[in-house]
Amino acid sequence: MGMKVVALAGGVGGAKLVAGLAAVVDPADLTVVVNTGDDFEHLGLSIWPDLDTVMYTLADLANRETGWGRRDETWSFLTSVGELGGPTWFRLGDKDLALHVSRTDWLRQGMRPVEVVRKLCDRLGVRHRVLPMSQDPVRTMVATNEGELRFQEYFVARGCQPTVQGFRFEGADSSSASPGVLEALSAADVVILCPSNPWVSIDPILAVPGIQSAVADRLAVAVSPIIAGKAVRGPAAKIFQEMGIPPSPLAVAGHYRTLLRGIVIDRADAALQGALEVSGVSVRAVPTLMRSSRDRHALAEATLAFARDLAGARVAS
Amino acid sequence: MGMKVVALAGGVGGAKLVAGLAAVVDPADLTVVVNTGDDFEHLGLSIWPDLDTVMYTLADLANRETGWGRRDETWSFLTSVGELGGPTWFRLGDKDLALHVSRTDWLRQGMRPVEVVRKLCDRLGVRHRVLPMSQDPVRTMVATNEGELRFQEYFVARGCQPTVQGFRFEGADSSSASPGVLEALSAADVVILCPSNPWVSIDPILAVPGIQSAVADRLAVAVSPIIAGKAVRGPAAKIFQEMGIPPSPLAVAGHYRTLLRGIVIDRADAALQGALEVSGVSVRAVPTLMRSSRDRHALAEATLAFARDLAGARVAS
Repeated sequence: MGMKVVALAGGVGGAKLVAGLAAVVDPADLTVVVNTGDDFEHLGLSIWPDLDTVMYTLADLANRETGWGRRDETWSFLTSVGELGGPTWFRLGDKDLALHVSRTDWLRQGMRPVEVVRKLCDRLGVRHRVLPMSQDPVRTMVATNEGELRFQEYFVARGCQPTVQGFRFEGADSSSASPGVLEALSAADVVILCPSNPWVSIDPILAVPGIQSAVADRLAVAVSPIIAGKAVRGPAAKIFQEMGIPPSPLAVAGHYRTLLRGIVIDRADAALQGALEVSGVSVRAVPTLMRSSRDRHALAEATLAFARDLAGARVAS
Repeated sequence: MGMKVVALAGGVGGAKLVAGLAAVVDPADLTVVVNTGDDFEHLGLSIWPDLDTVMYTLADLANRETGWGRRDETWSFLTSVGELGGPTWFRLGDKDLALHVSRTDWLRQGMRPVEVVRKLCDRLGVRHRVLPMSQDPVRTMVATNEGELRFQEYFVARGCQPTVQGFRFEGADSSSASPGVLEALSAADVVILCPSNPWVSIDPILAVPGIQSAVADRLAVAVSPIIAGKAVRGPAAKIFQEMGIPPSPLAVAGHYRTLLRGIVIDRADAALQGALEVSGVSVRAVPTLMRSSRDRHALAEATLAFARDLAGARVAS
């Protein structure tokens, strides 16, 4: 007990595992570092999709059907924006809007992003520490066969249809990790790379100066977002394919290269265990699909147990 | 026909007469100049209550029960703001919010208020010209027995409970009339002071340099917002009383002093006709309570007929 955990997370899959971790790890022992590369300004509002998904999921307010936004949502605002001739491609729900409007107001008053997230967590009853990866703007840009697109243009407006050729994290080079991020990493017994999209959810976090090397210094374990060649949700598998890499847990482990000590894969991929181990990564095969809260807890427990075993092995070696 | 009309209007009562005028006056011949003294920033959004009431009323989207906001409104946003610990005293509906968010976005992008109003009117299908009295910030401040309050604090947050001692229109001295306002006034055959609150809806308009003298140069007719000693809605009667003046059409005419050639009063106040005429103001007594669209049209027609008669008398004299 008392194992210090840092989770790196993006959207839905990451948020689900984070919710599982939050159910079994004391608030003092878990820090969640969240991708901000998807953040953007829309209708003058500061929209932070991954942070919101993580906070809503931890507060049990998330919409489990859509994977984004709030449950029991209403859409009067968006309908009226449409009637005014405004943009409706990014679906802002009426309840969700309360977060965006409040946050935008606080930021304009000079509140820093870390404090904004802390205040929102307080208000939503989220007790574990959630940190944006950086307080500086980092923007994921997607190189495609149709030219470079901003992430939300690619992801939401274009529905991931363009063929991906690469990614660029604008502003990352000159960004700094949020206060608390590097400190949490240096104190971590395990760093968990959540089952979020490696290319667009985890890579932006690792692109913030200091974070990748801090992760490399710790025991790092990934949970594969790819199960039997497919992503549970989102374009991860499609992106691997377009980048010329057959999507699989091997592709995930290869993506993170020397960073990982271990990877948690789905039982459906158990046949890949040997190949993964040859590449130098320890493997735990368990059910990784998170349909229920129970699934989330079980995967969190399994991941932590795996990390404890790896930590013990390190001590023994 | 072709009588050029400028209407000065504030909230509900003014908006209703404006809707009546719009039904019987060609768009090329009617300009509505609206009070902006109630405007304020709330949750980082630019809220323009009187302009919105006028636009919603002209677009037939207004909530006739509340007198503010939109009909068929939903309240998910406000509920969620409350859950986040935010302010809920100013009731922002989900549909209404589309206007506030869009406007705030446009203003931040550098659009001028006159253009914002024109764009919103276009989108809402409002064909008559609506102008904010000024593009500069003018803020109505209410001196009360509890100290000076900003208008929305007095009006909404405190429900008009404090006793009024006076008013101040912050910024008015250094403000300019919006482009088009003085031009419309100088071309007007009649200026109609709508049945809005004289103290807090019409006075701020007259406080913008150049407007009062431009009105004084034209044939000006007021429609009394006081019927049988009471305001149809809002604190006009209470304010007259607190300012030491018994509320009546006489009080309204006295308030506007030398500005008026005529005043339209309700038949319930017909007994005051003599006293009003002694004070030098012509009078027309008609039904002035606007419950239905038909009432609005009838009052608009009666007011215009009265103005035509006064114009004829002037020519004859």
